[in-house]
Amino acid sequence: MHQTHVSISTQSRDAALHGVAAAPDRFGRRAAAALIAARLDEADPAGFATAAERLAADYEHDIERRDQAATRLAALRAELKARHLDGFVIPLADEHQGEYLPQRARRLAWLTGFTGSAGLAIVLADQAAIWSDGRYTIQLDQQVDGTLYQRLHITDQPPWDWLAQAIGTGARIGYDPWLHTPDGLARLVAACTRAGAQAIPVDDNPIDAIWTDQPPPPLGLVEAQDLAHAGESSADKRARIAAELKAAGQDAALLTLPESIAWLLNIRGSDVPHNPVPLSFALLKDDATVDLFIDQRKLSPDIGAHLGNAVALHAPEALGDALDALGGAKRRVRLDSATAPSWAAARLAAAGATLAKGEDPCLLPKACKNPVELAGTRSAHIRDGAAVCRFLRWFDQTAPTGNTDELGVAEQLSRFRQADPLIRDLSFSTIAGSGPNGAIVHYRATPESNRRLAPGEIFLLDSGAQYVDGTTDITRTVWVEGAGDPTAEMRDRFTRVLQGHIALARVRFPQGTSGQQLDVLARHPLWQVGLDYDHGTGHGVGAFLSVHEGPQRIAKAGSPVALKPGMIVSNEPGYYKTGAYGIRIENLQAVTDIGQPAGAERHLLGFETLTFVPIDRRLIDITLLSSDERRWVDDYHRAVRAKVGPLLDGEDLAWLDQATAPL
Amino acid sequence: MHQTHVSISTQSRDAALHGVAAAPDRFGRRAAAALIAARLDEADPAGFATAAERLAADYEHDIERRDQAATRLAALRAELKARHLDGFVIPLADEHQGEYLPQRARRLAWLTGFTGSAGLAIVLADQAAIWSDGRYTIQLDQQVDGTLYQRLHITDQPPWDWLAQAIGTGARIGYDPWLHTPDGLARLVAACTRAGAQAIPVDDNPIDAIWTDQPPPPLGLVEAQDLAHAGESSADKRARIAAELKAAGQDAALLTLPESIAWLLNIRGSDVPHNPVPLSFALLKDDATVDLFIDQRKLSPDIGAHLGNAVALHAPEALGDALDALGGAKRRVRLDSATAPSWAAARLAAAGATLAKGEDPCLLPKACKNPVELAGTRSAHIRDGAAVCRFLRWFDQTAPTGNTDELGVAEQLSRFRQADPLIRDLSFSTIAGSGPNGAIVHYRATPESNRRLAPGEIFLLDSGAQYVDGTTDITRTVWVEGAGDPTAEMRDRFTRVLQGHIALARVRFPQGTSGQQLDVLARHPLWQVGLDYDHGTGHGVGAFLSVHEGPQRIAKAGSPVALKPGMIVSNEPGYYKTGAYGIRIENLQAVTDIGQPAGAERHLLGFETLTFVPIDRRLIDITLLSSDERRWVDDYHRAVRAKVGPLLDGEDLAWLDQATAPL
Repeated sequence: MHQTHVSISTQSRDAALHGVAAAPDRFGRRAAAALIAARLDEADPAGFATAAERLAADYEHDIERRDQAATRLAALRAELKARHLDGFVIPLADEHQGEYLPQRARRLAWLTGFTGSAGLAIVLADQAAIWSDGRYTIQLDQQVDGTLYQRLHITDQPPWDWLAQAIGTGARIGYDPWLHTPDGLARLVAACTRAGAQAIPVDDNPIDAIWTDQPPPPLGLVEAQDLAHAGESSADKRARIAAELKAAGQDAALLTLPESIAWLLNIRGSDVPHNPVPLSFALLKDDATVDLFIDQRKLSPDIGAHLGNAVALHAPEALGDALDALGGAKRRVRLDSATAPSWAAARLAAAGATLAKGEDPCLLPKACKNPVELAGTRSAHIRDGAAVCRFLRWFDQTAPTGNTDELGVAEQLSRFRQADPLIRDLSFSTIAGSGPNGAIVHYRATPESNRRLAPGEIFLLDSGAQYVDGTTDITRTVWVEGAGDPTAEMRDRFTRVLQGHIALARVRFPQGTSGQQLDVLARHPLWQVGLDYDHGTGHGVGAFLSVHEGPQRIAKAGSPVALKPGMIVSNEPGYYKTGAYGIRIENLQAVTDIGQPAGAERHLLGFETLTFVPIDRRLIDITLLSSDERRWVDDYHRAVRAKVGPLLDGEDLAWLDQATAPL
Repeated sequence: MHQTHVSISTQSRDAALHGVAAAPDRFGRRAAAALIAARLDEADPAGFATAAERLAADYEHDIERRDQAATRLAALRAELKARHLDGFVIPLADEHQGEYLPQRARRLAWLTGFTGSAGLAIVLADQAAIWSDGRYTIQLDQQVDGTLYQRLHITDQPPWDWLAQAIGTGARIGYDPWLHTPDGLARLVAACTRAGAQAIPVDDNPIDAIWTDQPPPPLGLVEAQDLAHAGESSADKRARIAAELKAAGQDAALLTLPESIAWLLNIRGSDVPHNPVPLSFALLKDDATVDLFIDQRKLSPDIGAHLGNAVALHAPEALGDALDALGGAKRRVRLDSATAPSWAAARLAAAGATLAKGEDPCLLPKACKNPVELAGTRSAHIRDGAAVCRFLRWFDQTAPTGNTDELGVAEQLSRFRQADPLIRDLSFSTIAGSGPNGAIVHYRATPESNRRLAPGEIFLLDSGAQYVDGTTDITRTVWVEGAGDPTAEMRDRFTRVLQGHIALARVRFPQGTSGQQLDVLARHPLWQVGLDYDHGTGHGVGAFLSVHEGPQRIAKAGSPVALKPGMIVSNEPGYYKTGAYGIRIENLQAVTDIGQPAGAERHLLGFETLTFVPIDRRLIDITLLSSDERRWVDDYHRAVRAKVGPLLDGEDLAWLDQATAPL
């Protein structure tokens, strides 16, 4: 049974206000504020929104108060002592293993002051340590007090080795079972076992107990996704996944990834930055019905009708009882041990359910976009390409003056994109790296690092947006005019990166080939002169969903999952010269079914390029290119002109004409 | 303590004769016959050898008596019944998981009649089945009686699924724990568990009980390997592996792979065809001493002095007591669960040892050849190349006459190689496929399949030899003159295979790169027109050891082990047109350390080509080659001329000159 109307008039206005404040800002607004103000019959909806903004700023400020690190650490230790725990593990994770955390789940940042995107801390009674990876070595040193925490590198001094050595026999090490997957927990338990210690799941997170101003779960608006964008009804999706469960003898699948739930139910949310997902849990039954565990205050009014009778709405707190019921009925429940909370695995097992470990059944179908999703994605990329072209025209005029900086450039690019009424968010925080900052692979400009753009430098710009019809992600590396030409070295490096990009754009491959197998094609031109890049070559991309999605991936140690028609991947080789400049050329491309052309003996797949923005001709050394490669560049630029040109005029169109001239 | 003299005068002459007969023939002789005749003070050593030959022929004949299949199956069922077993698993394996089995271990062939190189049978009371892979579908049907055995494909109908369905609750399924590794056994046990059945290790193999004329373990001569060929003393090898054990807190490692023991002790044997290994077991202690469990009758007289005091010799039967002793002393013993007999794991565990599962510690060091091994390998390849060139000159003259066939060609090639006094064996059974037979990837010519070579056809020849200084493996695909030119399609396919070969020969790559990452380079030119080949691109090769060795491998789903300097791999892309012809171009190449050339930022590795024999210019379509590829072919042919030319003269040298002319 679904509810056609949700009233929160009896709920506390204050709680709703805090929930709205705990959801992310998107171009100056919080997406559930108006909805919730209306449900509360607020006389002053604007005032409600303003109050939410103020509260959100307070949250942000409170989480990042590094001066409180000692106090908070001491409070945590007192709390652990009261609970008879000798230590506690603080991962950088929420209950959904999301790439972006809601404010409430930023426990690691609140405790330690570290705001990087990968990390882990372990607090013991007499020592503590925090880990991150090579991207964050400097930031870790800047943000975290070394007298409170040992600051360590995740692969050089692995946390589980550190833990096994630091603790004694009989130690009780607590962990929050909502924040660790069964696979991750196994490593923690192994470390404790090695030391003769015990890993103890806590019923409630001790940080939550001492974090007095912790934000509540976010209330970000959840909306229906039109069939015109989804391309397949939720009923059809549910039916085909349910049939798969049935065939595997599984009675239900527990879905804990919000992007899987968003895909399955054709809904989109706004609970975390950049990924348009509704934080929630779901149980998909083998009869194609779904129990959805979600805070109903954040549902737009039409959601009930959209979901229909086969989707029952429940409060998030009801999940435990639902798992108990499955256990009581001795059901076989599929659970992804790489992504689900270990809490759920333990609860199901304790209740008597049989755990069928297997990948989230939505992952692969979600990755293979249907024709409607692909059409929307193409359209989004052409409009996004026009916005990026307008920006690049502006950039070519403005950057040489020396009057703009990285933050200003990112802001300007965002303004060009926001002119599109279908935009909902950026798909990630823009990377705008000028000169040496471009060589920092995961650079994000901050007021402290912000660098003025100077003539005669290389500028790297990696950005993207979420449109209701598709997700974009593009990197262009451009030359700032005004102080001579790029050096021969710069053009050599840029051209080798381009050659790798072209090889991966043009390749045809037999069915069954994985991204891991193709990776070398993008690196080969760099390898031949002893260069390389320390990141993957391509990641999966959603359709108005996560800009990073699996299971496919193009990387050295990538995924063995075969590429399938409809999968979208990025193609982004690069080269980074520390202290000097960075180069990356990134287009998105969709896997296409070529079939078996005349003379072929294998069923072939290939790629369709989705991104259409000129590649900077000033940085290409034509003499390095083969005739095929040169033809690819000219053909690509002809396609850019044909697809994006009609959306431009005046100076923008003139810019495009010269930027897409044949080599 | 080692023994300086082994006398077998008290041993039965008959037993020794049977042991010699059970070892393989190598170019017309059995390598321990003379030694053992001398030890027996045989008045007529030639008569002893002749008797061994006769007995060997009887063994071969007895094993392949397919008319006995029903009788033998009935006898096995009676034996199982007497032992209260409901079934028995018969893998195609010996105690050392070797690629080539001694005659005694050919239980699957003796029972079922199937002589392929991969297989498994399961015999139950009322049904039986045999499995092999796609290479052997036809052979399985020809050799095995379908009324006795279901003949199944190993991946289409996996044996463990078949077993789980075929047996009932409570069934007792026997297996020989000497012939299954712990990893393999886990899958068998899982299948039995699924069916509510039990997997029962047998103390002695029931087939041995009914096989009245079963050969004994082979007595193949074991000889010392000179330091001049090994390049590192056994003492040094033992010391460095022992240090690794010590560092890992392991008291000993059980070595069950004869090639590991051969490498560690600098000895070579002749117990099985093609791989010069001495069947034996060894325990390497963390003090660098070794207990070697081997039949001392087969040791050449100088072995004791060669091995020295740190290697103690024991009878094979003493292994169990030695494992018990380790267990009694509560030792940590390293054991490779992918290659060791599960018997050893069970025995150690039962005795109280701690099993430290880990890869055979000799695998990686053995794969990385030292400078002396590389120098020997280079020399062996140049002499082998000269023999192959002599053959190819002969072939170009003879094949167009239509008076030779596949078996004749293989025999002729072997004769050219046998002229080298350093040859010990072929490194595998020659693959000589003319016309459509060349398209059968694992083709071996038999009297039935043997095909006359005809003008106007493509001929594929994959062969190699074991020399005391190195192991070779080469494939050449050549045109049989006399009836026009190769078709455009043939030349297109040959040239694409060549382009893949060249890409893999020329590539430079950063340290840490695995063969799996490089595989696509060899396939890419074929993929672009929808073609591919269904085998790996490259396998590891030993130094006067196995022609197939790990841990490195170049393949689609290859090994993630990084390529390291000194590793030898094959480079052998191919193309096979069913019913028409097969193409493969194979050279061996060694991984070389390029270091960091000027301008490079990564430490680079590359390949040194080891094989020097012309690639058939008649089959190359020059218009498909880039200028770099064309230069590679010409440079390669110039190197062939420079290295192999000095070993040739007369007609052979004239042939070489035209075969290596620039394109």
